Formats: sequence, structure tokens, C-alpha cells
Amino acid sequence: MNVVTGPETLLAGDMARIQRAIDTSFDALLPEAGDSRVRLAEAMRYAAIGGGKRLRPLLLSATATLHGVGFESAVRAGTAIEAVHVYSLIHDDLPCMDDDAMRHGKPTLHRAFDEATAVLAGDALQTFAFEVLADPATSSDPFVRIELVRTLAGATGASGMVLGQMMDIAAEAAQESGQFDLPTVTRLQQFKTGALLEAAVEMGAILAHLPPEGRTHLRGYARAIGLAFQIADDLLDAEGDEAAAGKALRKDAEAGKQTFVSLLGAERARAQAAMLVDQAVLHLERYGPEADTLRALARFIVERKH
Amino acid sequence: MNVVTGPETLLAGDMARIQRAIDTSFDALLPEAGDSRVRLAEAMRYAAIGGGKRLRPLLLSATATLHGVGFESAVRAGTAIEAVHVYSLIHDDLPCMDDDAMRHGKPTLHRAFDEATAVLAGDALQTFAFEVLADPATSSDPFVRIELVRTLAGATGASGMVLGQMMDIAAEAAQESGQFDLPTVTRLQQFKTGALLEAAVEMGAILAHLPPEGRTHLRGYARAIGLAFQIADDLLDAEGDEAAAGKALRKDAEAGKQTFVSLLGAERARAQAAMLVDQAVLHLERYGPEADTLRALARFIVERKH
Repeated sequence: MNVVTGPETLLAGDMARIQRAIDTSFDALLPEAGDSRVRLAEAMRYAAIGGGKRLRPLLLSATATLHGVGFESAVRAGTAIEAVHVYSLIHDDLPCMDDDAMRHGKPTLHRAFDEATAVLAGDALQTFAFEVLADPATSSDPFVRIELVRTLAGATGASGMVLGQMMDIAAEAAQESGQFDLPTVTRLQQFKTGALLEAAVEMGAILAHLPPEGRTHLRGYARAIGLAFQIADDLLDAEGDEAAAGKALRKDAEAGKQTFVSLLGAERARAQAAMLVDQAVLHLERYGPEADTLRALARFIVERKH
Repeated sequence: MNVVTGPETLLAGDMARIQRAIDTSFDALLPEAGDSRVRLAEAMRYAAIGGGKRLRPLLLSATATLHGVGFESAVRAGTAIEAVHVYSLIHDDLPCMDDDAMRHGKPTLHRAFDEATAVLAGDALQTFAFEVLADPATSSDPFVRIELVRTLAGATGASGMVLGQMMDIAAEAAQESGQFDLPTVTRLQQFKTGALLEAAVEMGAILAHLPPEGRTHLRGYARAIGLAFQIADDLLDAEGDEAAAGKALRKDAEAGKQTFVSLLGAERARAQAAMLVDQAVLHLERYGPEADTLRALARFIVERKH
């Protein structure tokens, strides 16, 4: 009997494959536990291996393989972008930041180890990301490698992810002043989450040697799913299941923080996310079924339960 | 009247020049304070501008210009390595690490701002370092840029600087077990401080397109001054002047921590440092007076008062 597999089945397979590949890659590339390195290596491995949806590596590899890049090469670049994502979660969870106790269904790193180790393991994971990208094993072309470094650094520093986190802290402090309207929240989320999701797609295009002028449709796709992702995140925080999420929810409401849900209401937020997914898929109209993973990923981003 | 200027005068001039150049470069390259970016940009600038000896940029630029590299290019790479040094100081000073109140004669970043801002400003300064190196303005040759990234990342992550900091924390915890003998302390310091000083020299050689086999003498020089630097640091911590240092001293003895001074005694530590400086200078014997800055720097490293 022939089973017709739709994009969702395809995505499940692709997602399981990238999750295994990223775990294997972290396991091979992260420092081995041994003598005095034990604790640092263990902490990096605890945080990096065996958790997370690996959405950024999947976005990267789906974009890269769509344009003929080998899976191995995409996994190395995906390991780098995921290392940055993991480092940002470790630091966000710290007592002086969000003070979270659970992440991916297990104690956060500073709870399982200690605060100093969590700061240092996060620092080392950021460095690790750039070390992996700079290694010739990622690409034999030094121009490709340096463009990967430049894109990842540009998306994650003081003009990207870290700025978004900083604005998020300011948002909690300034909530009562009413300054946080929809454009401000959109901008904050664009820095905090969108920039790295866009970098994932961009890095896939760089690996594929796509010229910048040939990336416009991919950037449109990435921009749309980045915003959809954050709206879905706010909906999950408001309505989701803590056990499925593996972390504490309802934190935004408790903190009185402005989100897409508080500003738009759940119904309009849901409609907005659905519209963004349609837009994302439209940006892919030049491709046939070979882009079904990217299409399914766009839908998954708003339909996910964790 | 002709004044004969010796290497020390030369060094003073070179040092003042690189200090001005690094401040100017940070000022030009770090994000501007503006709207919601104010606090993050201000924190990065507070920590990065107007403090520190800029030893690593001076080592890098002295090595690079000795081999014909322009000063501007050396300053950009020097800005990157100094950004990593600054980020490591910010995180080392955090309450969960060394809990220091003063740095370069002013309150540490988490005291002047807050802990979350200090974590994020440190994170963003690390990213900034790789962003500066990846920019074509640092070198028009992508291979040079990616080798700079690779060298800096290799020296500062889980096999370098951060590992050294982690071992340092373990050293404080394990002091009573008597495990910290001279080889262990030497290895710890090699990771914590030596690796970045060596990277400074290596990055200068990369900018100059020196082939790896032509760098052996420079690596010998860098290795010797790296160890001499740390012995001198331990001597300063034991015997130095807090006002000149701009930070708290006597911390090692108070923590009961093993150092070169506690293990060797001050006299033998001083003799060991002097011998290392002689070795460093010997590695430069192929050069004439054009290497006097590197020679003077080797002497400065053990004779400095802060």
C-alpha cells in the first residue's frame, strides 16, 4: 500500500534527522570531559545535547540543501547557530536575568551546576560557535566561512539578539509607563528572536553560494516566520501546557509584560500569525515540492505545542 | 641637544599611541548610545573605553608592524582582541565569580550598572570582537580574516581562556587538598592568560601573512612573556600598590590560593620572571632595532607597577 506523505510527515522526518545530527555533532565537537576540564565540558554538554527543537539548524539545513549543499556541511553551520541559541538561553535563565528553574524539562544549568559555571559555559559556547564556523571542515572556501561568521555575529550582538534581550529587561521595568506599544514590541522581538531565525536562512544561502540579490525571497520568508514564531511563543506562554513546554509558562502575564497577546488579544494574534505563515509560503512560490520542508516549517512554527 | 631614546622611551610612545588608537577605535566601532540601545551601548563603552594598558593590542600591532602591516589594520584586529579581554574582565568581576568592586580605578560594570547588563554587555563585546574581525575593513583577504577569527576563538573558549577561568575557580575550591602544585598552576595560567597573549602575537603574524613555519620564534617569544606576565601579576598581587593597580589586591593570599609566589617564594618568582624575559628577547635575535618595542614590552611586563 502506498502511503502519500504530506509536508507534515516530511517535516517530522526532517526534524528528527536534524535533531539526531545536531546531537551527534555537538557530541563530536564539544570538548571531552577529562581531568580539570570535566566540569566546564560537562556543563556545555548538559546544556547543548539532547534538548530543543533545533529549529534554527533545521531552517539553515532546509535552505542549504534546497540549493544543493550537502547535509554534513549544513549540520556544522547548524551546530554553530544552535550553540549561540543555547548560550543565550543559559544566560537568559540566570538569576540576574529571568531566573528560570527549568529548561527543556530539566533543571536550568545554573541550578544543575552553579552560576559561575553557567556564565562560563555560555561564554564558551558562544566562542565555540565561531570556532566551528572558522574551521575549514565547515567549508573549504574561506569567503564562505567568514561570511558565516559575519552573519552570525551581526545577528547576535549589540545590534541583534543581545539588544533584544536588553530591551526585554527594559520592557519589564517600563511596563507601567505604557511605552510598550505594538511597534515597540515588534521591534524588540525582531532583535531578540527574529534576527537569529533570519540568520539561519541567510547562512543556508551563504553555504549555497547564492548571491545576495538572489536571497530576497528567502529573506522575506525568514522575516515572516520570525515574527510568526514570536506571536506563537506569546500565545503558548498565555495558553500552553507547562509539561509539554518543559519550562515555566504564564511568566509574561505575571510580570505584567506587554506581548502580542496582551496588545492584540489572542484571536487577533492567532490570525496575524496565520497571515504571516501564508506570506512566508508565498515567498517560496518559485520552488516546487523540494521546498516543502520550509513550507511545513512555517506552519509548524505557529501550530507547535511547545 | 640630541636625546638618545632607549627602548623604554620607545615603548612609552608606542604604548600611548596604541592606547589612544584603541580608545578611538572602540569609540568609532561600538554602538552609539541612542533610544532603547542607550543602556547596552553605554555599558559596553563604560567597560571598553579609557582603561587598561592595551597590552594585547600593543603586542599584536608591534608584531604586525614589525613585518610591514599598516597601523590601522593592526588597530582593528587589536580592538577585537581587546574586546575579548574586556568581556572576560566584566564576567570575571561578577558577584558569582570574583565579586570585584573596582576595575581600572572605577566601579566594576555590574556595580555601575547592574548584573544583567554586565552579563549582556560582556556577551555583546565577545560577539563584537568576531564582527570586527569578519569585516573586510580589517583585511581585504578573507583567508586572513577567517584565520584571525579561528585564532582568537581557539585561544579564548573551552580550550583556552574560559577553561583557565574555570580551573581558577576549581583552584579556590580545592586549595586545601594540596592538588595545586607548580605544574598545575603553570597550566592554569597558560590557559587563563597565556593563550590570549600568544593569540595577540599570532594574530599580528597572520595579518603580516607570515607562513606558520616562520612564526616559531614569535611563538617562543609569546610563550615566554605569557608566563612572565602571570608571575609578575602574582608578585603585584602580593606586593603591589592598590591605588596604582586600580583594583583590590592581596586577594590570592586572602583566598589561600596557590600562586607562583606562594609556591616559589617572591625571590625565586622574580628570578624566574627575569629569566623568561631573557628567553623572550633571545627569540627575537634575528631582528635589529625594529623589534625594540617587542623587547621593551617583554621587560615592561615584569617591571610594571600595575
